[in-house]
Amino acid sequence: MSKPAVGFVGLGAMGFGMATHLVKQGYPVHGYDVFPASIERFKAAGGIPASTLRESAEGKKYYIVMVASAPQAQSVLFGDDGIVQYLPQNAVLMLCSTVSASDAQSVVTELQNRGRGDILFVDSPVSGGAKRAADGTLSIMAGATDEALNAARDILQEMSDEKKLYLVPGGIGAGSNMKMVHQVLAAIHICGASEAMGLAAHLGLDARATAEAIFASDAWTWMHENRFPRMVEEDWTPGASALTIILKDAGIITSSARQHRFPTPLCSTAEQAYLTALVHGWGPKDDSAMIRQYYAKPLSEVSPSADPKAATELVLELMRGVNLVAAAEAVAFARYLKVDLAQFHGLVTQAAGASKIFIQQGLEMIEGLIGDKAPEGSPTVEQAAAKLEAVVQKARDLHCPLHLGNAALNVLFQAQRHGSGRHSSTSVIRVYG
Amino acid sequence: MSKPAVGFVGLGAMGFGMATHLVKQGYPVHGYDVFPASIERFKAAGGIPASTLRESAEGKKYYIVMVASAPQAQSVLFGDDGIVQYLPQNAVLMLCSTVSASDAQSVVTELQNRGRGDILFVDSPVSGGAKRAADGTLSIMAGATDEALNAARDILQEMSDEKKLYLVPGGIGAGSNMKMVHQVLAAIHICGASEAMGLAAHLGLDARATAEAIFASDAWTWMHENRFPRMVEEDWTPGASALTIILKDAGIITSSARQHRFPTPLCSTAEQAYLTALVHGWGPKDDSAMIRQYYAKPLSEVSPSADPKAATELVLELMRGVNLVAAAEAVAFARYLKVDLAQFHGLVTQAAGASKIFIQQGLEMIEGLIGDKAPEGSPTVEQAAAKLEAVVQKARDLHCPLHLGNAALNVLFQAQRHGSGRHSSTSVIRVYG
Repeated sequence: MSKPAVGFVGLGAMGFGMATHLVKQGYPVHGYDVFPASIERFKAAGGIPASTLRESAEGKKYYIVMVASAPQAQSVLFGDDGIVQYLPQNAVLMLCSTVSASDAQSVVTELQNRGRGDILFVDSPVSGGAKRAADGTLSIMAGATDEALNAARDILQEMSDEKKLYLVPGGIGAGSNMKMVHQVLAAIHICGASEAMGLAAHLGLDARATAEAIFASDAWTWMHENRFPRMVEEDWTPGASALTIILKDAGIITSSARQHRFPTPLCSTAEQAYLTALVHGWGPKDDSAMIRQYYAKPLSEVSPSADPKAATELVLELMRGVNLVAAAEAVAFARYLKVDLAQFHGLVTQAAGASKIFIQQGLEMIEGLIGDKAPEGSPTVEQAAAKLEAVVQKARDLHCPLHLGNAALNVLFQAQRHGSGRHSSTSVIRVYG
Repeated sequence: MSKPAVGFVGLGAMGFGMATHLVKQGYPVHGYDVFPASIERFKAAGGIPASTLRESAEGKKYYIVMVASAPQAQSVLFGDDGIVQYLPQNAVLMLCSTVSASDAQSVVTELQNRGRGDILFVDSPVSGGAKRAADGTLSIMAGATDEALNAARDILQEMSDEKKLYLVPGGIGAGSNMKMVHQVLAAIHICGASEAMGLAAHLGLDARATAEAIFASDAWTWMHENRFPRMVEEDWTPGASALTIILKDAGIITSSARQHRFPTPLCSTAEQAYLTALVHGWGPKDDSAMIRQYYAKPLSEVSPSADPKAATELVLELMRGVNLVAAAEAVAFARYLKVDLAQFHGLVTQAAGASKIFIQQGLEMIEGLIGDKAPEGSPTVEQAAAKLEAVVQKARDLHCPLHLGNAALNVLFQAQRHGSGRHSSTSVIRVYG
């Protein structure tokens, strides 16, 4: 059976991989991008070049939008040459860009205002990076009406891993909310990876040995493992994952949080660290270049530590403390937004926001195993704070910035001041109300 | 009556001013510094040069230590050539350096261990900057036994403004604690001045006009008015008040706070911003150079705003929000440390940590005029958060870092999440427990 034609806009790092993967699966994909060079590259990879948005959309029952931001999505959908006016009746329109839930919801309103309520619109952001995009093994979080989800399902499944197409309950906006709460972890862990390696450098630790210790421990994060090779090689141009991308995602989180008056101290702290790097000109570089905000020289130029074992333990404790509060922040915000928490946990576990701490302690938070109900032998908030405190003091003695470590410690102290000190460390989630 | 001889160590920016002021008042001051050039400069100003610590101390009934840090104080007091071994019986030893209360208390212990319990030791940090040091109009916060305070009083009064010698109840450590809680405000406001002017630049505002609007408003801080000329002139070398100095003071605050497990989210945020500037090489520069962490170009090179009135209001709202939470953080920490709050308020009002918000809302917090007891017509936490939220969103749209603005907003959101939203904005202090 021949595959249906697909329209596609946004042939950047992620979009190019997704579109060419569909080409390999036998779909005639009509791709457009604002950069002619990207269209040429797509043509060379077997895609069908579209010279205008109109050409990419006319007669296409399926259409995928993978531009970089909500304003770009607004423009390609509803601008002067916007695709909505060209799509056929009952077309299936998949918005895969990362936008806020309210941006996704406003697309529905505008479709109706323009008399295109017939279009089957799906809010379906993706996660996984350029490599998984090209392999067709992305995580995709899709929210829509049942009719639209059924219509989009096969194509979304082509682009996602067999087990990573998440049909998120809650309609339009639910997919974007799921992606957003996932990105709470991603935004913190990307900065956290540089913070941990910056501390390691100040402590005189070998970067590779430290990273291996992290990967083998409960301090592991997906982001650390993913970013570390580029960080240590200083392979920052062009950015495989540009600083501006995670900055945009952090901005979606914190502006949504502000709309709900919900505190996100760690994610805000990471965002401010990214903005400071932007002021220093690092925006287009790979986000692993955040290491430069913590340590001024290459990681290969450290002075060796006298006691690498104890020093490595400090780095692990930093990550444990930050990852714990990150898990609390993500779970608390997800719960507040009424995100399906079991699905959220399953998704994160398999995606870029994963950490060992989230997988274990995050689940305990989700299941309400906090306070007296925590598993026997769990460390207390006081104990978690005491360990992180020792790291923060050591970093301070070394003049090493520790944005996330300090923010996490202050959240733990707030938990203590509000009576949770002797309770399990997962009880730190109570600070979020 | 001839004035008694005074020994003095630490002829840096502050110490030189203090020592030469005593010289002008007729005291024979025997000054020592680790840098021979500083001793020469002191000699040229009428001081008596001491070529060793011993020479500065032998036979001196009064001795003033004004070195830069606690480790330096430890060394000049108790090192191999330390002055304690040379001071006469019942000498009056004034430690004017900014150190932690526990550092000051450990001096007492060590004096006793060395059989020098006869020395009348005074914990007497100062505030006010190099100019006021030279004018003899510093603020001095002195804690000690009554006997030691009486013995030191005349000399401390020589160096301080008539109304700004504070005899702080509580003995050794009380002076340092008073200085420390004052520096909570100083550390936040120094960073806050650059943050506000950075936002102003991103908004396209003229720096001088904006500063004048700030000085004339309830957003005024002493630090802003003091640092602004150097910030706008880029007069950063050598630092009139080096970044490393406020960084040291912030470190005393946050490490003391950690010892008490007390949260200081704003002060920690400022400290991390300073540490990041240090990584970028700004340590020896004037702390007003923090503006470079917010805006990459000189303030004179901004693109003019279309609506300067509305934009200026955003800058004022930023400072109001930050100064409010700064006041809460300082008052809460001072109360926790059992600092005399009435004296604290009076002192700050006349010193470098002053802000209009602290003078008014800080007093309301001290007097317990929060919640239902706030003055009629006070804004609520919700209202304060909503105003700051608009600023934070605008700054984010402009890619302007807003470390303190975001941290303050998260504290306000936490107050809302814990049920204080409809209460007076001063109720934000409840977040500190």
